[in-house]
Amino acid sequence: MNGADRLCDTLLANGVDVCFANPGTSEMHFVAALDRRPRMRCVLGLFEGVVTAAADGYARMAGTPAATLLHTGPGLANGLANLHNARRARTPMVNVVGDHAGYHLPYDAPLTSDIDSLARPMSHWLRRCTGPDDVGPAAAAAIVAARSHPGVATLVLPADAAWGDAGGPADIAPAQIPAPRAVPEERVAAAAEAIRRAGPRAGLLLRHEGLRADGLEVAGRIAAATGARLFAPVQIPRVEAGLGRVPVTKIPYAIDLALKCLAEVDVLVLVGAPEPVAFFAYPGKPSRLLPEGAPALLLAEPGEDITGALAALADRLGAKAPPEVARPAPLEGAPSGDLTDAALSRSIAMLMPEGAIVVDEGLTTARSAFDLLKGAPPHDYLMLTGGAIGMGPGAAAGAALGAPGRKVVALQADGSGLYTVQGLWTQAREKLDVVTIVFSNRAYAILQREMRNVGVTEFGENAKRMMQIDDPAVDWVSLANGFGVEGAAVETAEGFHAVLDYALSRDRQGPFLIEAVMA
Amino acid sequence: MNGADRLCDTLLANGVDVCFANPGTSEMHFVAALDRRPRMRCVLGLFEGVVTAAADGYARMAGTPAATLLHTGPGLANGLANLHNARRARTPMVNVVGDHAGYHLPYDAPLTSDIDSLARPMSHWLRRCTGPDDVGPAAAAAIVAARSHPGVATLVLPADAAWGDAGGPADIAPAQIPAPRAVPEERVAAAAEAIRRAGPRAGLLLRHEGLRADGLEVAGRIAAATGARLFAPVQIPRVEAGLGRVPVTKIPYAIDLALKCLAEVDVLVLVGAPEPVAFFAYPGKPSRLLPEGAPALLLAEPGEDITGALAALADRLGAKAPPEVARPAPLEGAPSGDLTDAALSRSIAMLMPEGAIVVDEGLTTARSAFDLLKGAPPHDYLMLTGGAIGMGPGAAAGAALGAPGRKVVALQADGSGLYTVQGLWTQAREKLDVVTIVFSNRAYAILQREMRNVGVTEFGENAKRMMQIDDPAVDWVSLANGFGVEGAAVETAEGFHAVLDYALSRDRQGPFLIEAVMA
Repeated sequence: MNGADRLCDTLLANGVDVCFANPGTSEMHFVAALDRRPRMRCVLGLFEGVVTAAADGYARMAGTPAATLLHTGPGLANGLANLHNARRARTPMVNVVGDHAGYHLPYDAPLTSDIDSLARPMSHWLRRCTGPDDVGPAAAAAIVAARSHPGVATLVLPADAAWGDAGGPADIAPAQIPAPRAVPEERVAAAAEAIRRAGPRAGLLLRHEGLRADGLEVAGRIAAATGARLFAPVQIPRVEAGLGRVPVTKIPYAIDLALKCLAEVDVLVLVGAPEPVAFFAYPGKPSRLLPEGAPALLLAEPGEDITGALAALADRLGAKAPPEVARPAPLEGAPSGDLTDAALSRSIAMLMPEGAIVVDEGLTTARSAFDLLKGAPPHDYLMLTGGAIGMGPGAAAGAALGAPGRKVVALQADGSGLYTVQGLWTQAREKLDVVTIVFSNRAYAILQREMRNVGVTEFGENAKRMMQIDDPAVDWVSLANGFGVEGAAVETAEGFHAVLDYALSRDRQGPFLIEAVMA
Repeated sequence: MNGADRLCDTLLANGVDVCFANPGTSEMHFVAALDRRPRMRCVLGLFEGVVTAAADGYARMAGTPAATLLHTGPGLANGLANLHNARRARTPMVNVVGDHAGYHLPYDAPLTSDIDSLARPMSHWLRRCTGPDDVGPAAAAAIVAARSHPGVATLVLPADAAWGDAGGPADIAPAQIPAPRAVPEERVAAAAEAIRRAGPRAGLLLRHEGLRADGLEVAGRIAAATGARLFAPVQIPRVEAGLGRVPVTKIPYAIDLALKCLAEVDVLVLVGAPEPVAFFAYPGKPSRLLPEGAPALLLAEPGEDITGALAALADRLGAKAPPEVARPAPLEGAPSGDLTDAALSRSIAMLMPEGAIVVDEGLTTARSAFDLLKGAPPHDYLMLTGGAIGMGPGAAAGAALGAPGRKVVALQADGSGLYTVQGLWTQAREKLDVVTIVFSNRAYAILQREMRNVGVTEFGENAKRMMQIDDPAVDWVSLANGFGVEGAAVETAEGFHAVLDYALSRDRQGPFLIEAVMA
């Protein structure tokens, strides 16, 4: 058994049975090993950014890590932006990065680069296999790292470690995954005391288990008992939302709105989330979002028992009364007229089936969606988490694979979607039930706003050339068809409603794309 | 004048007047500064890999660096694969990477990452502006670094360095670019002695100035006088080739062919090129390509006076007789029948106009092109240089901008082209005369060969799923149309010849794409 076989078997023994891949020459032994193991589902991405986004979307839904297979430094580099998002989401994932044989590195062949330096900023854990007999232990350690909530584990696999004899037994025992660490009682006590004192001027900032239905239920009881308010960060890895679930207030992206959102908060208890800070710095505006003097109090961080800490907090506060859940008035009457953000979001909220998964990379164009969908049937809502645009098409594919049988609705800003548009092909190849809605405003609208924020209100030729993508306009239906995906373009709210209804209810399996040409 | 203004003026004062950009929020002050300077031509890429490839292609043709504008760590990461190629090509370029304001970094906002760690592996030179008054000096130093033949210079621009007051005079003197260093006479003497001794068993490995028409002429005289053979590396940044130019033998990519190519060489003189090594390591095969005991002798490396060293070598060898130049029999009769690599290359060689620029990312599918084009009218030939696929569409756009009025013929493998297919849009927006020929074999053919090299001859489901891209087949004409590019698909040699003839001779300015569906 060579190192590559050993790596595959270690992954499979630990329940990692999906591998998102874009392989290259130095990974041929690993590909051969995968080929000998049909239990591993290999999913090809035409670009590495699709591969890493897919692994992220997959694990957010499946709860278990996928593997990725990337080719040397440049292949890793192509996947880094979405590893950045995964790292910020704390998504478990095992990246296998092929490298030259160790003895070949000193020759500085054309594809040689410092993989470790590239991988470190976007990995929670990094290790280079020292030889074929190190592959098994290193792979097990990578899985432990991925699953014990650091998150992104990157394993560099030199070609000679893959092709050399790894020895060892054929049976591989699954690695022991440590349980989440218990949260010290003092933190629970301090949080309870702060919430009691501040009442409705206290906030809980929820993330990870805190945003799953069970966690939300407990947080909702705390809110009901104390008046504390429930917040979610500007970018959410995953929240269980919709009718019957405890609603949360998402902190807005725009700095002034974010400051306003938290202006009445005297103390913020952090439940799996870091303290909220400004997405960017602006001259004369603060980096912290909480009012001056308002502390952020850590209850639990990733790797700790967030669920247990939340339950202990509720107990200590005597929060037993049932929480308030989302019960907005039903949306009636399909929207008509211009295709605005609000009209699009309204149709989506009306038509989305129960159990759908929303993958939101809508940015400026899907602002209404999160709140309107509180009135939609129960669903999961996943967002871009690190601000590195270009997650959508791959993450939607991964989410569909991570939760088979559920419909994925991808809210996709056009500028961002073009970064990794190749992800549509993976959706077609795997016949995934993804309905992508492209919010086509033919501009980097977020930048146009930010330009106004720095005081530029009239755009000259160069500014227009960098912020408008309307010349030529991208024809999304052509792109979708080119990648084997059915599609339609619409220009009215009525048209959108009808096409979305069709796309969500048709019998045929496979992806569909709607280009919503916005007013 | 703020730091961003200072940066623009320093670039312009040094003749850097093209900026390939994919900006983000943290670069708004720089965008505003560019907007105040219409002399700077800003060219948008829909993805950063297009941006860096375009800057590479531009500088290879223009001879002067372009700037790039990239957004924080993830934006840089998206451009790294093509920076890798540029670094291997030693292409001069100034990358401006925006970062958070310095005081905002400790807050670890979502887009924060270790930009320096990401940039270092793919940069010859790296510096972070320490404040607004450091921007001018740092930009000047970046330009000096780019132009004195290290190559890739990366400048990190924190937002507060861009928006702060930079002071200083309005007039900026151009930076002094040091002349290439003279090559020590002893190296010339040693090379001459070795060539004299080895005669036809001596080789010159040429790169950079050694592959331009003038350098080739001198090398050709040396070959005529001594019998020494002329080689080019497997991947060539730029060679002036075609009828009337001194032909060179390109070292093949495949290890066995490469070893065979150099088997009769007793000594290899390195003229701007590193010693040739195997692209990848293979069990039981050597890393060095030269026969055991055959030395590689450095004559000149990048940053040194390659042209002068070559002239001095010719003088010392008394090489005055005119060189042999390419004068193959004219190709007659358009190819017919199946669309093979040879048929495609033959049509290209027959139809390509004088002064064309070939951008070759054809990989396995365009193997015949380099040799057949020796019979085409004089042209420039640019190749992928670092093995990081996905350079083609962007590099073709950059080359067209770097040499206005010349036709670009892009030989594009389908798998590679899909990495950065967004580059077609930039070609359309800038109305560039690029004719892209997609060699559509619907497979990662290079990997299929390498699998056979590791002993796998029957491919199972997983191997097929990772090496074939035929299900669904990508419709390149749809993709091209989606990005605003005209296109046609052909399936016969006759059809290809006719469409290529049309594409190269039509009046209308702008890009055209031909999908050649290969037999």
